[in-house]
Amino acid sequence: TDRADGTGKADDQASEFGQQLPGPRLGVGMDCCVIPLRHGGLSLVQTTDFFYPLVEDPYMMGRIACANVLSDLYAMGITECDNMLMLLSVSQKMNDKDRERVMPLIIQGFRDAAEEGGTSVTGGQTVINPWIIVGGVASVVCQPNEFIMPDGAVPGDVLVLTKPLGTQVAVNAHQWLDQTERWNKIKLVVTKEEVKEAYQEAMFSMATLNRTAAGLMHKFQAHAATDVTGFGLLGHANNLAAQQRNEVAFVIHNLPIIAKMAAISKACGNIFNLVQGKSAETSGGLLMCLPREQAAKFCSEMKSQSSGAGGQGAAGGAWIIGIVEKGDRRARIIDKPRIIEVPPRGTQAANQDNNSTSPAPSANLS
Amino acid sequence: TDRADGTGKADDQASEFGQQLPGPRLGVGMDCCVIPLRHGGLSLVQTTDFFYPLVEDPYMMGRIACANVLSDLYAMGITECDNMLMLLSVSQKMNDKDRERVMPLIIQGFRDAAEEGGTSVTGGQTVINPWIIVGGVASVVCQPNEFIMPDGAVPGDVLVLTKPLGTQVAVNAHQWLDQTERWNKIKLVVTKEEVKEAYQEAMFSMATLNRTAAGLMHKFQAHAATDVTGFGLLGHANNLAAQQRNEVAFVIHNLPIIAKMAAISKACGNIFNLVQGKSAETSGGLLMCLPREQAAKFCSEMKSQSSGAGGQGAAGGAWIIGIVEKGDRRARIIDKPRIIEVPPRGTQAANQDNNSTSPAPSANLS
Repeated sequence: TDRADGTGKADDQASEFGQQLPGPRLGVGMDCCVIPLRHGGLSLVQTTDFFYPLVEDPYMMGRIACANVLSDLYAMGITECDNMLMLLSVSQKMNDKDRERVMPLIIQGFRDAAEEGGTSVTGGQTVINPWIIVGGVASVVCQPNEFIMPDGAVPGDVLVLTKPLGTQVAVNAHQWLDQTERWNKIKLVVTKEEVKEAYQEAMFSMATLNRTAAGLMHKFQAHAATDVTGFGLLGHANNLAAQQRNEVAFVIHNLPIIAKMAAISKACGNIFNLVQGKSAETSGGLLMCLPREQAAKFCSEMKSQSSGAGGQGAAGGAWIIGIVEKGDRRARIIDKPRIIEVPPRGTQAANQDNNSTSPAPSANLS
Repeated sequence: TDRADGTGKADDQASEFGQQLPGPRLGVGMDCCVIPLRHGGLSLVQTTDFFYPLVEDPYMMGRIACANVLSDLYAMGITECDNMLMLLSVSQKMNDKDRERVMPLIIQGFRDAAEEGGTSVTGGQTVINPWIIVGGVASVVCQPNEFIMPDGAVPGDVLVLTKPLGTQVAVNAHQWLDQTERWNKIKLVVTKEEVKEAYQEAMFSMATLNRTAAGLMHKFQAHAATDVTGFGLLGHANNLAAQQRNEVAFVIHNLPIIAKMAAISKACGNIFNLVQGKSAETSGGLLMCLPREQAAKFCSEMKSQSSGAGGQGAAGGAWIIGIVEKGDRRARIIDKPRIIEVPPRGTQAANQDNNSTSPAPSANLS
């Protein structure tokens, strides 16, 4: 697919623009800009993101785009957002009828997710373009105690991830349902029903706000966090490691993955590099460094908040996926990581047990 | 052209998004969002804009895009900007060589204009797209006295415009130099040299920041302002009139237009509706309502600051173009408006007299 799934996306603030600045990257955070203001210790924290539709449901696409923008604030432990702008392009290939049906749904989804995030959309820009674009800008003015700079990991910390991996594989596999040649490559390892369920799970997961996790970062004293998007788990883990003040390295032992996506990735020739941590995610979970004694409590609280809210409004899950040790500010995945198959919330097993998307965290790492 | 010149652009914050909000449009200004913050009387003011290239010079295109984004802040009398984000798409049709040559120039132009505006670009997002997109987000946290809400016009005010009209005509005419059929329609009224000069003038004018004008809005007690972009002079005048607290109407008598552009517009069958005030502008001037006794002083100060700075850094010009009278919150252009032919700064006449882009304001309206 030449569409969204992260391709060509430089969605870290530091990438395209930060690199052109010589000297210290003042004001450039990992996922957001943090700009000191002229007014009494306050900072402006903001982020922008836009991309192309990757799910068929316009309403859900709007929700995902909004969750994806807000996620950069959440990665800094910020739970509030003062304002959102929406960035949109209408496809020139759509007729008037389709446009009037689709665009309001995208906007509504975006607005609803913003409202769930306790904020609202007050402006934006719309253009005509060959492709549909959906994105936004999130801004907040903060006191210093409201955000957590992503640079405080220490050896002994534990790595926690708050959404399962595999959204890109799920979205692609769903498209292959109608492409015989592609489908033939994976049909031995997965049923059509399983692909549909995984696609639903990916869609709901991408639309889930990382806001609960952001709030719990304060309660459980997270030392650093980022969100997992276009560069995949390992890419973002490397970026986060490179940012640390201490000489640390991240070692990843466990990979929570939407059920069957690892098998699909393998069956189709490993083009996604999913278990290598390189498959792009959209609106992925937070990857955070937590003090060892806090990690299990964090996961358990995420689990209880998730089952309380239920459905789309769920908080996501939480899995302990690795450790922080002394090292050269890089991240790696061990040779044979444990794959945690995360069942879609639509399955019978999931229906019987609301908590199954957030299995009890394993504190026993490999 | 199916490119920039304003087509399909809903560049007022209030249009696409504001209209979907029932009830009062809290937080939505004319050109910016104004969001009250949780912190001691401060407001977050922000705006976004993006579009497609409309000049051939990538560096100037970057400058124009930045000037165009900042202009929405300037229209509220705000002269500072705390942060800018840049929004970019790289065309999938460009080869690597072109991409590496062109994109850094666009970014550099954008950055340089931001620096001229006393701010800097600390983040952004880049995607791949069929077309190149350039745009940005400008944000500032303000005290109440730093911005002027665009709703205070009173009968007796004078309308002032700070850049000449005709950028869309100039950009199109310049493309027609290579299109025999189009060129034949206008060659009786204009020379190739004049078109090239007008194009240069349009390019420099679009790249000029409205920052000086924004600062002078405070000094000369402007009652309301907006910037002239995709809806043309009359469109934005109507929007501004509709926003007023008092029952006023705007009557426009004079149209400062880049030299020869009115003639071209007429010769090609009036497709632009330039003298009807409907031709789209990009990064146009500020249209403001000033107390009658202040307007001439404002124009004279704009003129002196413009000749002082010179070249690209010029402040723009200033022309008295109409009056505010009692009325039904609409704007109109009189039947036979006076066309003020604004000579390009590249012409000999302009070289002899640095001030010729800002002729002495006419206080004698029709």
